[in-house]
This record gives sequence, structure tokens and C-alpha cells, in this order.
Amino acid sequence: MQMREAKRGKTTPEMKAVAEAEGIDIKFIQRGLAAGRLIIPKNAKRENVSVVGIGEGLSTKVNANVGTSPDYVRLDEEVEKAKIAVRYGADTVMDLSVGGNIDEVRRNILRSVAVPVGTVPVYQAGIEAAKSGSVVDMSSDDIFNTIRKQAEDGVDFMTVHCGVTRAAVETLRRAKRLLDVVSRGGAMHAAWIIHNERENPLYAEFDYLLEIAKEFDLTLSLGDGMRPGCLADASDVVQFQELLTLGKLVERAREMDVQVMVEGPGHLPIDHINANIQIEKAVCDGAPFYVLGPLVTDIAPGYDHWVGAIGGAIASWAGADFLCYLTPAEHLCLPSVEDVKEGVIATKIAAHVGDLAKGIGTERDDKMATARRELNWAEQFKLAIDPEKARELRRKRPPTLDPNVCAMCGNWCAIKMVEEYLKRSK
Amino acid sequence: MQMREAKRGKTTPEMKAVAEAEGIDIKFIQRGLAAGRLIIPKNAKRENVSVVGIGEGLSTKVNANVGTSPDYVRLDEEVEKAKIAVRYGADTVMDLSVGGNIDEVRRNILRSVAVPVGTVPVYQAGIEAAKSGSVVDMSSDDIFNTIRKQAEDGVDFMTVHCGVTRAAVETLRRAKRLLDVVSRGGAMHAAWIIHNERENPLYAEFDYLLEIAKEFDLTLSLGDGMRPGCLADASDVVQFQELLTLGKLVERAREMDVQVMVEGPGHLPIDHINANIQIEKAVCDGAPFYVLGPLVTDIAPGYDHWVGAIGGAIASWAGADFLCYLTPAEHLCLPSVEDVKEGVIATKIAAHVGDLAKGIGTERDDKMATARRELNWAEQFKLAIDPEKARELRRKRPPTLDPNVCAMCGNWCAIKMVEEYLKRSK
Repeated sequence: MQMREAKRGKTTPEMKAVAEAEGIDIKFIQRGLAAGRLIIPKNAKRENVSVVGIGEGLSTKVNANVGTSPDYVRLDEEVEKAKIAVRYGADTVMDLSVGGNIDEVRRNILRSVAVPVGTVPVYQAGIEAAKSGSVVDMSSDDIFNTIRKQAEDGVDFMTVHCGVTRAAVETLRRAKRLLDVVSRGGAMHAAWIIHNERENPLYAEFDYLLEIAKEFDLTLSLGDGMRPGCLADASDVVQFQELLTLGKLVERAREMDVQVMVEGPGHLPIDHINANIQIEKAVCDGAPFYVLGPLVTDIAPGYDHWVGAIGGAIASWAGADFLCYLTPAEHLCLPSVEDVKEGVIATKIAAHVGDLAKGIGTERDDKMATARRELNWAEQFKLAIDPEKARELRRKRPPTLDPNVCAMCGNWCAIKMVEEYLKRSK
Repeated sequence: MQMREAKRGKTTPEMKAVAEAEGIDIKFIQRGLAAGRLIIPKNAKRENVSVVGIGEGLSTKVNANVGTSPDYVRLDEEVEKAKIAVRYGADTVMDLSVGGNIDEVRRNILRSVAVPVGTVPVYQAGIEAAKSGSVVDMSSDDIFNTIRKQAEDGVDFMTVHCGVTRAAVETLRRAKRLLDVVSRGGAMHAAWIIHNERENPLYAEFDYLLEIAKEFDLTLSLGDGMRPGCLADASDVVQFQELLTLGKLVERAREMDVQVMVEGPGHLPIDHINANIQIEKAVCDGAPFYVLGPLVTDIAPGYDHWVGAIGGAIASWAGADFLCYLTPAEHLCLPSVEDVKEGVIATKIAAHVGDLAKGIGTERDDKMATARRELNWAEQFKLAIDPEKARELRRKRPPTLDPNVCAMCGNWCAIKMVEEYLKRSK
């Protein structure tokens, strides 16, 4: 158990791997883990996984969601998406399948990628219940048994919407949101609470959840089922009431040595992002913050991966630790393999941009600048976040007069002109 | 003359058009123009142009660069790029041609689009001189005669690198930049200064430049020839020394009733952007700020339009008034028509994201949220920044079970679930 060992002042192979990957002293990792300010999501049962640290002082990590929908159930394609995501730099993958044989998809993905894998178990619990009735017919046991089953498979972290409580639903009812709930898991829990007039089992029986988590060293990702679904609803009472609930649960999880992170919006105007990160860090005592986007405008369907990258870069700079990608398909349809690739690249760029402001990873940019000064194209491609794309563009419109420059300026290359005259006169 | 009329307390049809487009009182426009805090670039000789206001209190505007290179001289394609740029929302177009018959390209573009058109006349002056020698052989007259010729054609605004002075070149020599000069015009002037050991004519004879500008009500865009070309060089003494020079020239231009804006970086880490905007606004007494990007990482060739959109969104939020787009081809080759479209869309999104934080244009996002709650797809497409792209994605992977939702969640649509239960229980 990572957190228990850390609290005892012990180091583990996982801590060592993270320290090496980040170029940080292992003592920093151990202390951060002990304090709950960083996590290493890894199921005790999972083997052959390349561990990753998420949290304070570490580079910003990126998650890619894959998974079937009721409309598109293609096991091979979802596995391919997971592999492509990892190939382009996703640090983790979440399987959010809600169609077909959910067990089969999850187990295949766990076998196919060597990064931490996450799930949202209430999807499967609700969908199974709906087969003989409705999602609101699922029992507390259905939820916990699904969590246990997925943990047995080796899932490393799970989103649990413990903050969607009866009180939260009451607040939602009084609020004048444009979009009430846009979280799929949040909606399932809210519908369940309204229909059954009972408390959310993940909240009422949180200690039981912690027991299961402890057994597998499962990392909990406290979901934001009440996250705003548009800019107009951003940073409202519904959102922050849930966050306050999550802050209390963070404390209880840490007492039980269960690693925990907190999920955040969603849709926020650009000027709300910094405040949201600071509030989460304060209310949740520095727990790693996992944000979706944030999307900083609602009017760009087809480009939401980039809208999320604008928000994600600022969030990363402000202290968010983990960015969930978006794809061009967001708000429109299930993403294709190509959409997954584009989403990962956009989000990797966002994470890197935020990291640069924190002094992390600047060497690569400096090397690129040097390669540009030297008009060294092979080196520029090597350093590029997507070498194929850069190469393809240059290949399509090559310089025809001087192979050293590019076809934008040709001989009027500023770098070439100034280097020539500066050197001559020096 | 817009500024002279404004100073006299008079309003012009152009001020009226801008006031209406922005939904702002014409007195605000007139006062802003009089103070030089906003501009309406329009050559007195240009006809049939849809004017646009740039500056304090107005929505953020977007410029698209087009133009030939020595490697690719295709008049029709450059005209097509200008049209596509305007179709996707570019507020202005700059013709940066450096290949083929530069007069012909410029005149065609001026005839083909109804938005303000800008140029960088030193390109043409340098290239003409190079035909019988070198760019450093151009005379002061060559530069001013080119400016006059382009103004006669109706060019509405021109980038003039008046801040690339002998002193600036000396500072550059002492600086330890990774990339000395990356501005094409800046490089021409710097090479000229070094070779001729003389002061930049645009600086030495700035009053003559103002006379020409006054004659045509030409707007000057004071170029940043010394802008940083990579993150490592950002916000250095070379950059700010030039900005201080430009600040003094802003004052002189205003005295002569010449409209003026100031150009800015370029390459900046995300945490430098706000400071750069605030410093320009202070040093240049609120002159409209026209930024290129800024690019917030150097490692993403092929995606620089989006890297620029991250920087541009923050810049717009911080008070930048005018964003110059970048395309996927930046740093690689001359952009294609498709690259131009992608660049404009990315930059329009950035401008809008920044505007939202300033309270401009929020209604459109609210309408989108309402259309999403109502699962009203026709309305969502109508409100989208690129309806074709959004429609195409949904068409490729349509929902197969319920036409009202999307193929990402299918029946597990959060909006559908919660609306159903919340309404039922209300």
C-alpha cells in the first residue's frame, strides 16, 4: 500500500520509479504520498503497469477516455483507441464503456495497455439494473459488488460520485441552472436519489467503499457529478457544495490510507479557472486535482479538444495535476481512433504549456529554439510533439529554392538574414 | 480623418458603423479614437470596406495573413485564402507577399475582400532592391516610395518596424538570445542597419512617415522586429527596449492625428502574457495592442494555430485588442487554403474566449447551453463557430437508437436522465 508505506517513512519500487521519471528526490515523493498531496494509482493486483505520479510538484498528467456506447459496440476499436492514446502520450486511460459486454472491454484494455486504467463503476451497475428495469432500480449491493468486481480485474482508479448527495440534489432543485446535470454518473445517482428518496450509497456507506479500496490499494477519484455543464452555470453553489462534501471525504480516505484525488469542472469561463484550482487545493487540503478541460466556451463543437486545451493549460499552470482530455467529438458523438489521437495531442500540449510556467520541461523548448536557429530540420522533427504531422506539412510544401529554409519565407528567412549580417560584423 | 474628427468632437459614418457593430454608444467610440485608445483602420482612398474598430472596450479582432512566398507564387490561391479567411470570420487580412508580382497580388486582394487590408511595405522595398543587389542596398526613398505606392492602392494599415534602431541592434548584439531576430521585416531592417551603419529610415524620418500616413489616413502598426523567437528569449531587454521606443512614437503619431497600434510577441510562456499586455498598455498609453499568438510553447509545429490560441485567449482576456492568427503551417511552410481556415477558426475561438471573460458575447454561449438542454441539434449547429464541422462529426457517427441524443452516451444521456426524474418529482 503506497500511502501506508509512505506514512511509515518507507519507500516502494513505485515511489522510486516516479522519482526517477520526474527527476525528483524520492523523499519528496514519499512525503507527498504520506500527506496525500500526490498519488500513485496502481491496483495491488495489477501487473506490468508503468506507474505514474500525480500531484504537487510533478509534471501535469493526461488521461484519455475510451469505451463503447450503446450505439457503437466495437471491442477492437476501443482497444485500438486505448493503444493510440498511450502511443501519443496519455499517462492513463479510462474505460467509460456503456454498451455491449462491459467486462470484456475493460479486461481487454487492462491487458492491452501498460498505463494505469480507470473506470466509473456506477455505469456498469446502472446498466445491469436497467436490463430488467431501470437504472434507478440498482441496489447498494449492485454498486459495491461492481466496484469489487472491477477492482478484482486490476482497475487502478475509479471515479465515485460520492458528493451527489440528497442535500446536493435539493440544492440543484432550487438552483436556476441552464443545464442541471451533465455528468453521466452524476445523473445516474441523482435520478436514483430522486426516485428512491434515499441517500447515495457511495456517500452513506463511504467507509465500506474505503474498505474495498484499501483491500486493492485502489485510488478513488471523487467525481464531480454536479459540475457545471455550461459557462453560465460555472462556479455556482451546486458545484461548490459538492466540493465541500468531497473535501471532508478526502480527509476520511487519508485516515484509512486510501489514495484519493478530486475531480473538477468542466465548463468555466477563462477567468474562473485559477480561483477554482485554488479553492479545491484549499478545501481538499492539497489533494491532486483532476479536471475535465475546462471548456472555456460552449460554442465550438468539433473543436472542444482545443477549447479544453486552452482551459487545461491555464488549469495546469494554476496547479491542476491531471487533465482529462476531450476530443473533437465531444457533445456530438462517440470519438473515432483519429479523434482520440487529436484529443491526446491537444491535451499533452496543454499540460506542457502549464508545466513550462512551473519550470518543468523547459529544456525541450530550448532545444527546439536551437534547432530552429541552426535550421536543423531533422532535430526539429525529433523534438516535435507530433513529428509525423510536422514532417507531412513540410513535405507537402517543400522549399524549392533553398533546402535549408522553409517555404513560408524562402530566401527571406529572418534567421538566415540576421545570422549572416550579425556574424559578418561581429 | 478619423482621429482628427474625433478630437474635434465630430462623429463620422465609420464611427457610427463601429458603434452599431459593437452595440456601444458612439460617444464612447469618438472619445476612444480621440485618445488613441481605439482605432478604425481605413485608408481614405479605400472604398467598399466594412470598417472595424480595434481597441479598448471593443470585442477582440482577428487578422489573417496571406501572401506569396518565393517558393509558391499563385495569385489565385492567395486571393482564395483571403476570401476563406473573411468567410470564417477574419476581421482584417494582411498581404505579406514576398514572391512574384507583389503589386498584382496586393491589388487583387484589395479588390476581393471587403475588410481592412494591411501590408508590410519593407518586404517589397527590400525585394525590389535585391533584384539588382541585396536587401541592404535599398534606399530610404525605396522604403518611403513603396509605402506611398501601397497607400495609393488603398492599403488600410501597414506594419512599420520603426523600433528596429541602431541602439536596438547594439542591444541585440550584447544579448545572449537563442534566436536573434525572427521577424522578417525586423531582420531586413537589422541587416540594413548593420551593413550601412546608418539609422533605420523609418525611425530617423518618422515625421515623413507620419506625413504620408496623414495624407491617406493610413493606420500605422508599429512592428516588433525584435520580438522573441522562442520562450527562452521572452520578455528580455531587447524586446522591451524596442517597446519603449514604440511608446514614444505612439505619442508623436497621435499629435499628428495618425492612428496607431503596437505589435507584440510572439513567443511567451503562459505566465508572461498578462505582464506583457499591462506593460504595453502602460508604456504606450493605452494604444491598441496587436499580438501574434502568443505562442506558449515551441515544441508543437503543426499545431501552432492552437498553441497561439491558448496564448491569444489569455492575451485577449488580459486586454490585447487584436490577434494575428497562426496556421498549422507556421514554422514549416506556406499555409494552404485549408490551413488558413483552421487558423482563422482557432483564433476566432481564442478571441471569443477572452471576450467572454470581459463580458462580451456571452449570449451566444447561453443560447448554446439552452439548445443542449433541449437536445435541439439544429439550433446547436446554427450557434456553432463551424456548423459544417459539427454537423459532419455527428453525421459520421449518428445515434442509432434514439435520434434526440448523441452517440457518445446514447440512452445514458445525462441531460435526458436528470430532466426526466427532476421534472417527474417537481
